[in-house]
Amino acid sequence: MGALHEGHLSLVRQAAAENSEVFVTIYVNPTQFGVNEDLDSYPKTWDSDLAMLMKLDSELAEKPGHGRITTVFAPTTKVMYPTLPPDSTIPGVGSFVIISPIGQVLEGASRPVFFRGVATVCMKLFNIVAPDRVYFGQKDVQQTVVIKRMVKDFHLDIEVKVEPTARDPDGLAMSSRNVYLGERRRKVGLVLSQGLKAAEEQFTKGKRSRADILWVANELAMRIRDEQEEMKPNKRALFDVDYISLADPDSLEEVEIVDESRGAILSAAIKMMPLEEVNEGEDCGLGDGKIAVRLIDNIILQPTNAT
Amino acid sequence: MGALHEGHLSLVRQAAAENSEVFVTIYVNPTQFGVNEDLDSYPKTWDSDLAMLMKLDSELAEKPGHGRITTVFAPTTKVMYPTLPPDSTIPGVGSFVIISPIGQVLEGASRPVFFRGVATVCMKLFNIVAPDRVYFGQKDVQQTVVIKRMVKDFHLDIEVKVEPTARDPDGLAMSSRNVYLGERRRKVGLVLSQGLKAAEEQFTKGKRSRADILWVANELAMRIRDEQEEMKPNKRALFDVDYISLADPDSLEEVEIVDESRGAILSAAIKMMPLEEVNEGEDCGLGDGKIAVRLIDNIILQPTNAT
Repeated sequence: MGALHEGHLSLVRQAAAENSEVFVTIYVNPTQFGVNEDLDSYPKTWDSDLAMLMKLDSELAEKPGHGRITTVFAPTTKVMYPTLPPDSTIPGVGSFVIISPIGQVLEGASRPVFFRGVATVCMKLFNIVAPDRVYFGQKDVQQTVVIKRMVKDFHLDIEVKVEPTARDPDGLAMSSRNVYLGERRRKVGLVLSQGLKAAEEQFTKGKRSRADILWVANELAMRIRDEQEEMKPNKRALFDVDYISLADPDSLEEVEIVDESRGAILSAAIKMMPLEEVNEGEDCGLGDGKIAVRLIDNIILQPTNAT
Repeated sequence: MGALHEGHLSLVRQAAAENSEVFVTIYVNPTQFGVNEDLDSYPKTWDSDLAMLMKLDSELAEKPGHGRITTVFAPTTKVMYPTLPPDSTIPGVGSFVIISPIGQVLEGASRPVFFRGVATVCMKLFNIVAPDRVYFGQKDVQQTVVIKRMVKDFHLDIEVKVEPTARDPDGLAMSSRNVYLGERRRKVGLVLSQGLKAAEEQFTKGKRSRADILWVANELAMRIRDEQEEMKPNKRALFDVDYISLADPDSLEEVEIVDESRGAILSAAIKMMPLEEVNEGEDCGLGDGKIAVRLIDNIILQPTNAT
């Protein structure tokens, strides 16, 4: 999707460690944006993307046993959607891959065309590139589950590799959208990674039930939200919690008790609302704090048979 | 889909003439049958299918420059649908390919899940087999348009070959379902191929407007239906006309005037109703004339620039 950051580069690095040729695709796919979503405001940074990839490729040239970036594929929409123009409506006109019901829950619940768009564009890209392995970041965990399901159900001869979420030192998961946050919202937005981390600790301590694992995340979110609501509009950053989920790693169904042989995905999404009042000289991010920013994050609770 | 007949064999023959290895798949795909459709009554004839293919392969062995049938692939449903059981409901749960709107018109109008099932199973089969060329019969013309669209939109590196409809000497297009017809319904069902043929003649004579081309087919259908209705229940074979269509060869949109640079697809579907009364010793086909039989047929009006 472009707007490359260290998270993307870490995927390329891992790919180069495991393959002789790395094919990078940069394409902001219109069909995964809903009709009222932020396709236009999605950051497009072609020149800096390319510069980052060239620099990384020079590093790879020095690394023994590593592959190189042989191609950067940045198709036009006419190439990706050769017959009908890309459509983001429901049910939608065009040729689509639908992965149901796992594309409809969590992120798919608030973004109903999102995974249809993701699966469709990935199927096209996989057919064009014919890769041995594809690399996805764990940050978009539902995407990795949907792609794995697509690969299995459609018998694609491709290995799906999922690499750890790259994080800034404060714990915020890297995302192209983070440039819109600014300092104030970024700080409050840490509730997301901190809440998940606290819930993970409950699991690590031996808790297995939904209530026992999630309560700390819910409580932290409520506390921080209350704190913010009591502050003045030029100091606070309000947010809505979309979901805090504890789900099966394959079916993405919410679980009441974590099955230790399967583990679970702990995930959450919050929406940082636009800043209400901005102070002189304040770093409000790209778009001056006026753009709502949806943040997602997750932690995988690994399967284990030790209690 | 099994229940092989000479139409299928002609596809295999053509494939063997153009390729060194021919891979035959036989799979009655549940997701292309609607919840109330005839999956259970669809003829399954594994032994005779295999015998026909073995015989054909012996013939191919004698033909210089021809390929051979190297594989008959008859997967189980668990192989084709490895995660969720095949679902024929709308909207349906599972991993699907949807080709819209061309999968929704004509055959898709009365069988809303049909082309979703066809596109989905073909995408799986194409990925498993990785063929250079795939062979489809023109009889299922909408299927060929849907598959060509899928191949183009998903950038599949496959050539789609469409071979002429095989017909019995009386003109009836060969179909696995014909075994259910019996003599009486078969004779009346010829209205389908005869009506299309008559409409084609209008085009050949230079007619280009929908009304001028289709009127003969509509009139023939009405006349034959009236004739049948006046006959006694033990003599007649009633039928419903589902559609008589004149459509663009790519978009399948109905056309008012045939664009000579594009040509058109002339197609129709009728439903032969169960026989009301059966006579002693009468050949009523498999199922004793009790099963309604949907018949489809088509003629491609070739593009031409001569008027």
